[in-house]
Amino acid sequence: MDIGSVIGLVVASALIILGMGSYVTAFVDFPSMLIVLGGTMGAILVFFPLESLLGLGGIVKNVFFTQNQSTSNVIAAIIDFAGRARREGILSLQNVANETDDEFLVKGINLVVDGIEESVIEQIMTNEIDFVEERHRTGAEMLASMGALSPAFGMIGTLIGLVIMLQNLQDTSAIGPSMAIALITTFYGALLANLIFIPFSGKLKARSQQEVLVRRLTLEGILAIAAGNNPRVVEQKLNSYLAPKLRGSLTG
Amino acid sequence: MDIGSVIGLVVASALIILGMGSYVTAFVDFPSMLIVLGGTMGAILVFFPLESLLGLGGIVKNVFFTQNQSTSNVIAAIIDFAGRARREGILSLQNVANETDDEFLVKGINLVVDGIEESVIEQIMTNEIDFVEERHRTGAEMLASMGALSPAFGMIGTLIGLVIMLQNLQDTSAIGPSMAIALITTFYGALLANLIFIPFSGKLKARSQQEVLVRRLTLEGILAIAAGNNPRVVEQKLNSYLAPKLRGSLTG
Amino acid sequence: MDIGSVIGLVVASALIILGMGSYVTAFVDFPSMLIVLGGTMGAILVFFPLESLLGLGGIVKNVFFTQNQSTSNVIAAIIDFAGRARREGILSLQNVANETDDEFLVKGINLVVDGIEESVIEQIMTNEIDFVEERHRTGAEMLASMGALSPAFGMIGTLIGLVIMLQNLQDTSAIGPSMAIALITTFYGALLANLIFIPFSGKLKARSQQEVLVRRLTLEGILAIAAGNNPRVVEQKLNSYLAPKLRGSLTG
Amino acid sequence: MDIGSVIGLVVASALIILGMGSYVTAFVDFPSMLIVLGGTMGAILVFFPLESLLGLGGIVKNVFFTQNQSTSNVIAAIIDFAGRARREGILSLQNVANETDDEFLVKGINLVVDGIEESVIEQIMTNEIDFVEERHRTGAEMLASMGALSPAFGMIGTLIGLVIMLQNLQDTSAIGPSMAIALITTFYGALLANLIFIPFSGKLKARSQQEVLVRRLTLEGILAIAAGNNPRVVEQKLNSYLAPKLRGSLTG
Amino acid sequence: MDIGSVIGLVVASALIILGMGSYVTAFVDFPSMLIVLGGTMGAILVFFPLESLLGLGGIVKNVFFTQNQSTSNVIAAIIDFAGRARREGILSLQNVANETDDEFLVKGINLVVDGIEESVIEQIMTNEIDFVEERHRTGAEMLASMGALSPAFGMIGTLIGLVIMLQNLQDTSAIGPSMAIALITTFYGALLANLIFIPFSGKLKARSQQEVLVRRLTLEGILAIAAGNNPRVVEQKLNSYLAPKLRGSLTG
Repeated sequence: MDIGSVIGLVVASALIILGMGSYVTAFVDFPSMLIVLGGTMGAILVFFPLESLLGLGGIVKNVFFTQNQSTSNVIAAIIDFAGRARREGILSLQNVANETDDEFLVKGINLVVDGIEESVIEQIMTNEIDFVEERHRTGAEMLASMGALSPAFGMIGTLIGLVIMLQNLQDTSAIGPSMAIALITTFYGALLANLIFIPFSGKLKARSQQEVLVRRLTLEGILAIAAGNNPRVVEQKLNSYLAPKLRGSLTG
Repeated sequence: MDIGSVIGLVVASALIILGMGSYVTAFVDFPSMLIVLGGTMGAILVFFPLESLLGLGGIVKNVFFTQNQSTSNVIAAIIDFAGRARREGILSLQNVANETDDEFLVKGINLVVDGIEESVIEQIMTNEIDFVEERHRTGAEMLASMGALSPAFGMIGTLIGLVIMLQNLQDTSAIGPSMAIALITTFYGALLANLIFIPFSGKLKARSQQEVLVRRLTLEGILAIAAGNNPRVVEQKLNSYLAPKLRGSLTG
Repeated sequence: MDIGSVIGLVVASALIILGMGSYVTAFVDFPSMLIVLGGTMGAILVFFPLESLLGLGGIVKNVFFTQNQSTSNVIAAIIDFAGRARREGILSLQNVANETDDEFLVKGINLVVDGIEESVIEQIMTNEIDFVEERHRTGAEMLASMGALSPAFGMIGTLIGLVIMLQNLQDTSAIGPSMAIALITTFYGALLANLIFIPFSGKLKARSQQEVLVRRLTLEGILAIAAGNNPRVVEQKLNSYLAPKLRGSLTG
Repeated sequence: MDIGSVIGLVVASALIILGMGSYVTAFVDFPSMLIVLGGTMGAILVFFPLESLLGLGGIVKNVFFTQNQSTSNVIAAIIDFAGRARREGILSLQNVANETDDEFLVKGINLVVDGIEESVIEQIMTNEIDFVEERHRTGAEMLASMGALSPAFGMIGTLIGLVIMLQNLQDTSAIGPSMAIALITTFYGALLANLIFIPFSGKLKARSQQEVLVRRLTLEGILAIAAGNNPRVVEQKLNSYLAPKLRGSLTG
Repeated sequence: MDIGSVIGLVVASALIILGMGSYVTAFVDFPSMLIVLGGTMGAILVFFPLESLLGLGGIVKNVFFTQNQSTSNVIAAIIDFAGRARREGILSLQNVANETDDEFLVKGINLVVDGIEESVIEQIMTNEIDFVEERHRTGAEMLASMGALSPAFGMIGTLIGLVIMLQNLQDTSAIGPSMAIALITTFYGALLANLIFIPFSGKLKARSQQEVLVRRLTLEGILAIAAGNNPRVVEQKLNSYLAPKLRGSLTG
């Protein structure tokens, strides 16, 4: 679970509820929610192909719940494999899948063990990376579009509320509450966009960049193993992907 | 028919009408509709060349009603043709048009059968792809411009309504309904932009990308056939265009 | 004359005047017009060099009144010239200016007849195309800036009206009409931007692209003639610039 | 002095003051000016390094008061120098500084006279051009940022005025004037942005492009002189930088 | 300490407080601050990875408090080192760290003294520069996002205040103060964005560019020393990074 997101959502919600004080129930209005959320979702269904939308849940879940592989661990594993391949031969990596749960790394090592040509390995795994990137990019775009649509439907809801209120001006005691309800859709739209959709889109982009970096590094390592590189050379190559303070001798 | 768009439009409209409750008739105002739609359309006529606008209907219809060729079917067909060309010669593909309704593929195969040089085939068909892309891009731009213009004409309509209302302030009982009508054009403008024009523009872009991808893949397959490539090589080349989970052995 | 623009302006204006109904005179206020138009023009004089602004009228007129050369006619003329040059020699093109009113084409043919080196012809005519492109681009930018400035000066006018009105609140019967006049500048600014400036900028861009395409094609044809290419080869080269449905054998 | 800017500022100001009529004094409020201008300037001090800001005045002055070198004059001077260098040798250009007040040209000619290597001349003078470009770009960015900040501080001032007014609702006769003063900061912010900051930024960009073009052309001329090119060749090279209607034989 | 930022913040704050006059206490509302700041911070926690956010404080502090190395000093030091390396050999630079507190320069010189290959030095130090750039870029993006989020949460706070106020319209004497408090969150959001977040983001970008320029120049100098270049050549190379008026003979 992504701790930052949880803390952020809890803190912001708590302070907003605090600001509402004893009027908190005045901010719960089911029909207003339906207009904002339903309108946004309806427009998104027109906006993006159904296949993309059906994949959105999975992407968001993956991004917020899956721990990214730690860059240093991946580098350590690859250097270890490179050493073994050198000492005991490529075939000694056959059972590598038992030692790591990094599917992308396992797939790459298996291609090396199977004796697939380097250029083909590169093509296959680069395609894989591109597809992940594209899927994440579409996901971030969908969330950003929701962040643009929800305030618009919030305003549409407020316009509906205002028009209804203006038909009933004779009952002056009802003007205040009617207008309050009209404003609530704008409130929902702004809150959804600025606390959920836009920040989610941002984090998805950051996580995707991080994941793609790890995969690029993994691919470079696998190609170095396939080329029979010395583990020290492999380490030098991969270390350039690490932030300076994380670098250190992993081969010892 | 594009199911997602239908569901999206129905859901959003239903929830918005639900939100209007018994006041739904207060939101139907023909002159307001004329100002928003007419103003937007008038401005679009000034904005884009007439030829482009006349083509918009067709593009939108194609995009929402035509089923895109399934990528796997196109690949399967090309691999099949590649196999036949190898076994029975290029000329055996002469009647291929009877087996597929994919005009672009048929046109390409015919060029191969006619013995046109590979580089010429590539140029002709790339031009074709570029023209489709350009036409779709213009279409998406027109829809996006409508999405920017309709809220503006909604606001223009509201300003007209407000100015008229302000001339009649003495009749206080009329203020409410007059103002309600003034707001309706803003409501129309916002709804048209956020439920129709902007999402349509988005889907047009996504469909176009998908169609262009299929055509690029088709072109690569046709060039491989013209070059007399082995069906397995053709398959390998084309599979890199498929999402990983869709890949599989199509040659068997 | 550009029919689409005329229809668009007439339709939009008619519907907007229809929406004003019997209050149409309430929307004519000369001082408000002066603030919006004068403010926008004043700011544009600060914004762009005087030389560019003085050329704007001509650019706009050219774009909306000059019929672009039809692409097919230009191609047909070039193929015809290529054929004559082959049969009767380059010098036979000397009087070509009598047969076409396309100045750019005439200029190019004259350069060929004068025996100027191909690379020099290319440089001279490419520069010419670049200058046209640059002039159109500046024109489109000026119109787009007017589209951004006029709503701003509309709001500035409304602020002026509101401040004046707020000084006179004691005369309650004047509040309505004063506020109405205050809003009219916003109305003017929005209408000018969304019906005139922004759409004009858009059409200027589209026409410019079309004109530049025709000139690129003309240049390629002239270079082919200078190189003594076979008319059929010239046709093949130029046809790739045509939309598929417009292609056909022009040499016969 | 840049005539267009003066006319633009005078016309726009006159029409706006005309629109204020007899209420013109109601629009002069010193504290409001302090909030908008002071806030904008304060934020700009945080935004940009002090060195850049201190240079802004000079850049703006240069751009609006210095007459750009006329392109044709510069070309004529270079062709003249090229002719003299050919007839009387490079050293004859030693006293060229007496004949032109174009510092950049003089500097270049001096480098040629000093016998500096061509590639070094090119590097030195290209660096010079880059620094001018960079300084102008930063200037245009600063003005554009002021154009974004001043409406924001206008709104901040209005919020301050509204909050103060809302504390004093009991004195109903003061509401109008208080609110009028509150709106004045928004008026100042919008006027500064749309009549001064944004248009100044635009003109700075246009002048900078023009100046850089003249310097590029000057550099090319100087390199041609250093290479001992024939004056006619120099003319041909430089003429391609001129708009077609300005071209003509300068060597005669 | 960055003097410009201090002056800017003091001046803007002073003028704004001046504008508030005797009502300054009316603008201090702790719950409103909590909603705007807490909401913005909560959303930022969802928006960016925790690691990036934890580094933000350090980046901001570094940028506003660390004096950038003066470009001329760095160049003078490098030319001095280049001279010594020539006269007394590379190893004479071993104790260079005692003479300068520029860590990046020291690190580079040490790599040269250690006899590391030039291409490896370049790779290591370029990576270092890239990581600094990336960290600053992320920092500037975070501040810019806060500048977009804080006005949004200001508006959300105002909507909360309005909804609460509208529930209590019967107590007319409370309407003014309630509405005043509702507006204060919008005031906070606008002030934070336009005086703090957006300008800080701008200065971070400018400082980062300056720092990266100094490091690029340092790297070029170190590579020249490693290559055993003559100090005069080193000076020529590095001077091209200086603004013209700062150039001068540093070797003498």
